[in-house]
Amino acid sequence: MINLFEKKIKEYEPLKDAILIEGLPGIGHVGRIAAEHLISEFNGEKVMEIYCNDFPPQVNVNSDGSVEFMNNEIYLIKEPIPMIVISGNTQSLSPAGQYEVSKRLIELGIEYGATKTYTLGGLGVGQIPNQDLKVYVASTSSEIAEQHKEYGVEFREDNGSILGAAGLMLMFSKLNDIEATCLMAETIGYVVDPKAATNVLNVLSKALNFEMDFTKLEQRAAEVEKLLEKVQLTQEEAEMPEDNDDLSYFG
Amino acid sequence: MINLFEKKIKEYEPLKDAILIEGLPGIGHVGRIAAEHLISEFNGEKVMEIYCNDFPPQVNVNSDGSVEFMNNEIYLIKEPIPMIVISGNTQSLSPAGQYEVSKRLIELGIEYGATKTYTLGGLGVGQIPNQDLKVYVASTSSEIAEQHKEYGVEFREDNGSILGAAGLMLMFSKLNDIEATCLMAETIGYVVDPKAATNVLNVLSKALNFEMDFTKLEQRAAEVEKLLEKVQLTQEEAEMPEDNDDLSYFG
Amino acid sequence: MINLFEKKIKEYEPLKDAILIEGLPGIGHVGRIAAEHLISEFNGEKVMEIYCNDFPPQVNVNSDGSVEFMNNEIYLIKEPIPMIVISGNTQSLSPAGQYEVSKRLIELGIEYGATKTYTLGGLGVGQIPNQDLKVYVASTSSEIAEQHKEYGVEFREDNGSILGAAGLMLMFSKLNDIEATCLMAETIGYVVDPKAATNVLNVLSKALNFEMDFTKLEQRAAEVEKLLEKVQLTQEEAEMPEDNDDLSYFG
Amino acid sequence: MINLFEKKIKEYEPLKDAILIEGLPGIGHVGRIAAEHLISEFNGEKVMEIYCNDFPPQVNVNSDGSVEFMNNEIYLIKEPIPMIVISGNTQSLSPAGQYEVSKRLIELGIEYGATKTYTLGGLGVGQIPNQDLKVYVASTSSEIAEQHKEYGVEFREDNGSILGAAGLMLMFSKLNDIEATCLMAETIGYVVDPKAATNVLNVLSKALNFEMDFTKLEQRAAEVEKLLEKVQLTQEEAEMPEDNDDLSYFG
Repeated sequence: MINLFEKKIKEYEPLKDAILIEGLPGIGHVGRIAAEHLISEFNGEKVMEIYCNDFPPQVNVNSDGSVEFMNNEIYLIKEPIPMIVISGNTQSLSPAGQYEVSKRLIELGIEYGATKTYTLGGLGVGQIPNQDLKVYVASTSSEIAEQHKEYGVEFREDNGSILGAAGLMLMFSKLNDIEATCLMAETIGYVVDPKAATNVLNVLSKALNFEMDFTKLEQRAAEVEKLLEKVQLTQEEAEMPEDNDDLSYFG
Repeated sequence: MINLFEKKIKEYEPLKDAILIEGLPGIGHVGRIAAEHLISEFNGEKVMEIYCNDFPPQVNVNSDGSVEFMNNEIYLIKEPIPMIVISGNTQSLSPAGQYEVSKRLIELGIEYGATKTYTLGGLGVGQIPNQDLKVYVASTSSEIAEQHKEYGVEFREDNGSILGAAGLMLMFSKLNDIEATCLMAETIGYVVDPKAATNVLNVLSKALNFEMDFTKLEQRAAEVEKLLEKVQLTQEEAEMPEDNDDLSYFG
Repeated sequence: MINLFEKKIKEYEPLKDAILIEGLPGIGHVGRIAAEHLISEFNGEKVMEIYCNDFPPQVNVNSDGSVEFMNNEIYLIKEPIPMIVISGNTQSLSPAGQYEVSKRLIELGIEYGATKTYTLGGLGVGQIPNQDLKVYVASTSSEIAEQHKEYGVEFREDNGSILGAAGLMLMFSKLNDIEATCLMAETIGYVVDPKAATNVLNVLSKALNFEMDFTKLEQRAAEVEKLLEKVQLTQEEAEMPEDNDDLSYFG
Repeated sequence: MINLFEKKIKEYEPLKDAILIEGLPGIGHVGRIAAEHLISEFNGEKVMEIYCNDFPPQVNVNSDGSVEFMNNEIYLIKEPIPMIVISGNTQSLSPAGQYEVSKRLIELGIEYGATKTYTLGGLGVGQIPNQDLKVYVASTSSEIAEQHKEYGVEFREDNGSILGAAGLMLMFSKLNDIEATCLMAETIGYVVDPKAATNVLNVLSKALNFEMDFTKLEQRAAEVEKLLEKVQLTQEEAEMPEDNDDLSYFG
């Protein structure tokens, strides 16, 4: 059985007409970087940690000798608009865990005042492209998806799927009678990709009509691009570890 | 733990002496195509959606920007004879999920008025045969199986198995004291096979004594056959993706 | 969650001081053949079928068009001594299923009057040996194991394990305060092995002090030996399917 | 569902301000050997056995014909300081099992009087090193980790993880408001490593300020080192079985 352990960090007053935003780890860590940038820029306040017996059975070691637990976290943001941001360092390992955690996160989001959901993620393109990376949209209704076209997003034509929380939280939003939209930024996929995160946040900020500073993300993206140029030159680091997890900048 | 989420789409009056017909995805998508043809031809009305935390943890993206959830669905048909048709876009991933969903579908079928069960599926033959593709039968009793011989079906002689819902729904029918029969159409297996679905429906309509129009299925089969001729000529597309899921025609 | 479905076939009067004997499928089908021979020779009466959502999610097709369900079965034997025999066509697929089914079978065995347990199985030796195949013993105490030496069994010296029901039913016997012994017959392992089943029953009948007719098993063993001679000559059939399941003779 | 079966071996008076010490099987069996040495040197008394349906579904065969069950065990030590030692011959197979067993062991440890936790383990270095093998520390807070530096331990700089009970028991300690520290000794990893166990116990005894006799461990380590020299000479036994489990000396 999937067991969730919820640890309240802070008492809260539910927000009003808030947007639930999911950014858990996935391809290129796009969603996670975007969520952490939102939390950092808008002073998100952590209100809950969620532990699950279907997360990887481990702890991570920090360089200061402390350990980091595997969990998902809920942050509340009041300005510029009310947001409930879900981030974390992991997703469930099994289908049942994926379903149960996504279901619970939507329930919690609604309790915290969410009336609409956005899930953020990457769409792997496998190689360094010559052109601008696109952002795709998929929604719980085609009307909602259509409305996003003015923000520069496209529809996918691959008959593909959205895996994990980014997909299932659309489903559980709809089953709980709230609309939900997934924004997927094209990404090379095998490195942490702050550029794709910038692209996704760019669309999100237009759709939700708020402004935000991308300076830190752009600095980070510039660093990664330098790295990628080296990769193209040498091709030697092409098989870098997938779980490159150095997100300390975004903490 | 396997969790099922049942979403009632419409209140219903249970049918009388209805036939429960299962057509979930499997080899050649034979059962699914057959079930969707029944629903389409006889105006099946959707009464319930079933979600399960053991289905693939994803949503599928449609070309109009909307998303499709993974689920099983129950449709009621009143004419030409009362039928309860179970279709959907997935089956459970684990043994426990297979058992629990099949068990629940039989219980729901009986609540909707089923007194007999048919499960429809394919039997992969692995290559394009030179002769007519057969339909095999297996029932919860040899007497019932024997009665089907007059409709042109044969007994399998391979000491084989029937995997998934098509098999387990026979078992749960019997454990709930109703008879059940599986019709399996030979199919190449690696393409969606409307011809095999036609074969299986042909036997079903004789066994249940109703008439139906196969025009749409036959058109679809002709298209697939043209494709297969090309395959034979070129052999290049022989390894086409197994989860070819373009069933939009049958929606 | 592991779910068991128990179907009572017949009301029973618990036996007195009965021996619980487990013979579920395993290497060489040794335990299963032995259990089915006991049931056949001593007119075992089926009292219960056990279904589990961790058994293979399938049904098997018989040549008469009927289907066989995956289950475990409990048979009672009154003469020559009271025995509760557990047989079936499958074991659980996951560790949790193995534990839960073994635990429940011991509880049921004790309800049916068991005060001692024997589990029967094979120990694969991987090739056709030149000498007589041994039978090994392992018990919940070394004293009990030692007592069996007079029946011609040996101790294993490989620091090995006993997998599945044959091992776990020893454990759950002991945790329920009854002694238990496993008899393992050496077997080539890749064919159904009635000779090994004869060896194991030979020891069991001495230990429990009853006589039985091995004629049918010996006929069957002679047939298999002829087959093996051919294998040695041709070596072509060496890789025959492992799940050779033609046990109809033992039905 | 993960099920735990707890078998009380002896009634107990909870200890006061005791240290919970985990030494379950892992790489090089470092933690297990260390825990068994503590139990042996300080006359640990077994108070509980824990069985779990996610442990390997088997029993092990001893050379005296008896069988050993897969379990975890809790021992109490009163002198030189109060300790609750957790050892055993296995860990859970699935993530859910890992979480549930670790959670329960911490709860039981606290019931037995624990106010602080140490988990002991190995860190594989993959080859026979030329220099002294280090011991690393990681704690639920960097302050606690820092305090251990005076005992000769270092911080890991690999951004790595601590898998299984040694990691999760840190987490569940913290979630139960007690501090916890993991000591990881470098080990070659593919043989049982009493030298690494000595290294880890050496740090532990300094941190907890007690003295202990390492003679038996050092004898054992000398034997293993002789074996390793042979390995270096011949390189033939380099691929010895990983689950070398001959810990009878430490029983």
